[in-house]
Amino acid sequence: MAHALALGRRGLGRVWPNPAVGCVIVRDGRIVGRGWTQPGGRPHAETEALRHAGAAARGATAYVSLEPCAHHGATPPCAEALVAAGVARVVAPLQDSDPRVSGQGFAILRKAGVEVTTGVLAEAAARDHAGFFLRITRGRPFLTLKLALSLDGRIATATGESQWITGPEARRAVQGLRACHDAVLVGAGTARADDPALTVRDFGDVGQPVRVVASRLIDLPLMSQMARTAAEIPVWICHGPDAPPEKRAAWSGLGARLLPCALQAGRLDPGAMLHALGQAGLTRVLCEGGGQLAAALLTGDLVDELQVFTAGIALGAEGQPGLGVLGLSRLADAPRLRLVDISAVGGDLRHVWTRHEKA
Amino acid sequence: MAHALALGRRGLGRVWPNPAVGCVIVRDGRIVGRGWTQPGGRPHAETEALRHAGAAARGATAYVSLEPCAHHGATPPCAEALVAAGVARVVAPLQDSDPRVSGQGFAILRKAGVEVTTGVLAEAAARDHAGFFLRITRGRPFLTLKLALSLDGRIATATGESQWITGPEARRAVQGLRACHDAVLVGAGTARADDPALTVRDFGDVGQPVRVVASRLIDLPLMSQMARTAAEIPVWICHGPDAPPEKRAAWSGLGARLLPCALQAGRLDPGAMLHALGQAGLTRVLCEGGGQLAAALLTGDLVDELQVFTAGIALGAEGQPGLGVLGLSRLADAPRLRLVDISAVGGDLRHVWTRHEKA
Ligand SMILES: NC(=O)c1ccc[n+]([C@@H]2O[C@H](COP(=O)([O-])OP(=O)(O)OC[C@H]3O[C@@H](n4cnc5c(N)ncnc54)[C@H](OP(=O)(O)O)[C@@H]3O)[C@@H](O)[C@H]2O)c1
Ligand SMILES: NC(=O)c1ccc[n+]([C@@H]2O[C@H](COP(=O)([O-])OP(=O)(O)OC[C@H]3O[C@@H](n4cnc5c(N)ncnc54)[C@H](OP(=O)(O)O)[C@@H]3O)[C@@H](O)[C@H]2O)c1
Repeated sequence: MAHALALGRRGLGRVWPNPAVGCVIVRDGRIVGRGWTQPGGRPHAETEALRHAGAAARGATAYVSLEPCAHHGATPPCAEALVAAGVARVVAPLQDSDPRVSGQGFAILRKAGVEVTTGVLAEAAARDHAGFFLRITRGRPFLTLKLALSLDGRIATATGESQWITGPEARRAVQGLRACHDAVLVGAGTARADDPALTVRDFGDVGQPVRVVASRLIDLPLMSQMARTAAEIPVWICHGPDAPPEKRAAWSGLGARLLPCALQAGRLDPGAMLHALGQAGLTRVLCEGGGQLAAALLTGDLVDELQVFTAGIALGAEGQPGLGVLGLSRLADAPRLRLVDISAVGGDLRHVWTRHEKA
Repeated sequence: MAHALALGRRGLGRVWPNPAVGCVIVRDGRIVGRGWTQPGGRPHAETEALRHAGAAARGATAYVSLEPCAHHGATPPCAEALVAAGVARVVAPLQDSDPRVSGQGFAILRKAGVEVTTGVLAEAAARDHAGFFLRITRGRPFLTLKLALSLDGRIATATGESQWITGPEARRAVQGLRACHDAVLVGAGTARADDPALTVRDFGDVGQPVRVVASRLIDLPLMSQMARTAAEIPVWICHGPDAPPEKRAAWSGLGARLLPCALQAGRLDPGAMLHALGQAGLTRVLCEGGGQLAAALLTGDLVDELQVFTAGIALGAEGQPGLGVLGLSRLADAPRLRLVDISAVGGDLRHVWTRHEKA
């Protein structure tokens, strides 16, 4: 099952709006088929693994990292395919929350006499599928917030120098984070100040995440890396209802997709933004700042995971804060997170925090 | 040798101005004596271990965490005591930098026919004795800076709430840090705002570090925990040449020790402060803030080790910065540190950084 989960993870960031599933078919203690959801969301993991296994699937056990699907979509349901292939037993960590599946995949299998075991590594699977589930249950993607900070929580000097705070290994780890998310999101301030490309580089053939910018009035430079490459790698813009038509037209003309979002106290409502992104199919979004947008997402209780890279440098109180104003009046109201992982990445420290309740 | 080092560490914070040494005497593969520098700095570790071993020391190997002393002080030199006891071999990580010893301890041993091996675990020993060495070579103690911060580098909300940012385990770890330092140092801002006791609590019989406050004009409340307890647990005040005589008299009357220090740009010169503390015999000082004093120490390149406790809470840009203004004009001038240790302490993250060059 751990192997099926690991295979499934290969699809993270590349299969939205589908779940990234892995499947391992075992007969007589030998792996006869392996598969994972293919880029774009199909073929499904089970289809791949069954194709691989061929006749060897008869009487075998299939380990699938999520309940096999039960609905006729572009492909026939995987639950039926497993039955047809003569699989004797299916082991899965948990039920799919998609209402079109939700227990019916298991029901099809059981009705056909296939033994079904669930609950194996359920927590790990819930983590892997958190984005897929959140989109179904709450209509929004899983949100990871990345912060690259100095020891004292700054992202740039007073004069705006922010390059080379973290080292090359940490920057590479950020590329890895981009690669396993469906989209990378930044605030307009970062887009204007840094002209970032937000692409995955030097990671082999991994596909590129959608690049999302939040700007109420689409106040974004047309002479920018994102504008120039919008035709090849998707650029989506979350904007307000009052964004000027000529800006909309200009960015549409470049190939960008426009997502109108409601306002809240004069700014784009972060909850509305995430809903728009969920509506558009995204299951996993990585926000890379800046500080204002990050603060808005934290205040809206929308941050599911926080990935912090801390560099061994001090920038002082005159440096730019990595997190904007939260508008807290009491310590008791401050957002709290739970530590889940720490490691050294080159000369920097990486620490991962998650929301307190279970995802 | 690792055992000798561990025994030596028991003395850290309790033996200044002497080094905290450990000694293990081994004969025929069996430990026949153990000792460490006693509170106050004597008896020395070797004396203790030899007393423990008695006649069994004859022909034995003594593992000592620092070169045995060679000078006649309040006690006869340990090198001679080892010779007199008939020890056959002495293993030590490194030479003492005290000019009264510095190779002469080893010379006495070798001259008497004792085999001497050095270099074993030298790096670990150099770390343990860093404060003792720094005081001799540069006239100042080893400085550890402790920061307890939110995820975004804040120590308090905008309204000054700072209790309960880190959890009970982290607070206990801070008590442990206090216990292995000779003194705890805070800025006057912290003394005025928090009225801290700066004592070691719930750690058994460990002795109390000296409490040092930096205040140019001795602008410190006389109705405070430190003032009340100055007669029992030492309070030292680093002050400027212009501190009012009546303030000096009041604090002297309470039992505090006054250390006049030079000014630099209108504030106490942090280098001068540390020299005064070294002069007074301190080898290991723990600075617990606040942000302004911490910034001054970092700017003065006086921080040897940084102990950060990061809590899973975000306080926002309106919160009080954990580190004050450093006055940096270029990123290249920012203080840089090297990551040496990370761990989870309760729900908090502890990360330890050290200066880039070797201590
Ligand atoms: N070292 C690093 O890793 C790193 C990473 C990222 C950024 N940075 C630095 O951070 C700085 C930019 O940060 P920033 O905080 O000024 O800008 P930001 O958070 O990137 O963007 C703020 C802008 O986003 C738009 N926005 C849309 N919805 C929002 C909402 N709900 N709340 C807040 N803003 C919303 C607003 O622009 P509109 O008015 O157009 O809507 C707002 O002005 C740059 O200097 C950049 O170099 C550093
Ligand atoms: N959460 C925590 O762990 C924690 C820990 C410590 C502090 N705090 C908080 O931090 C706040 C106090 O911090 P702070 O930054 O205002 O004060 P601070 O750094 O504690 O003290 C600053 C004062 O120290 C004196 N000083 C002496 N030499 C100095 C030098 N070279 N550079 C700077 N100051 C020097 C000055 O007072 P004189 O004019 O009298 O010389 C100065 O005003 C309080 O709110 C406290 O609650 C929190």
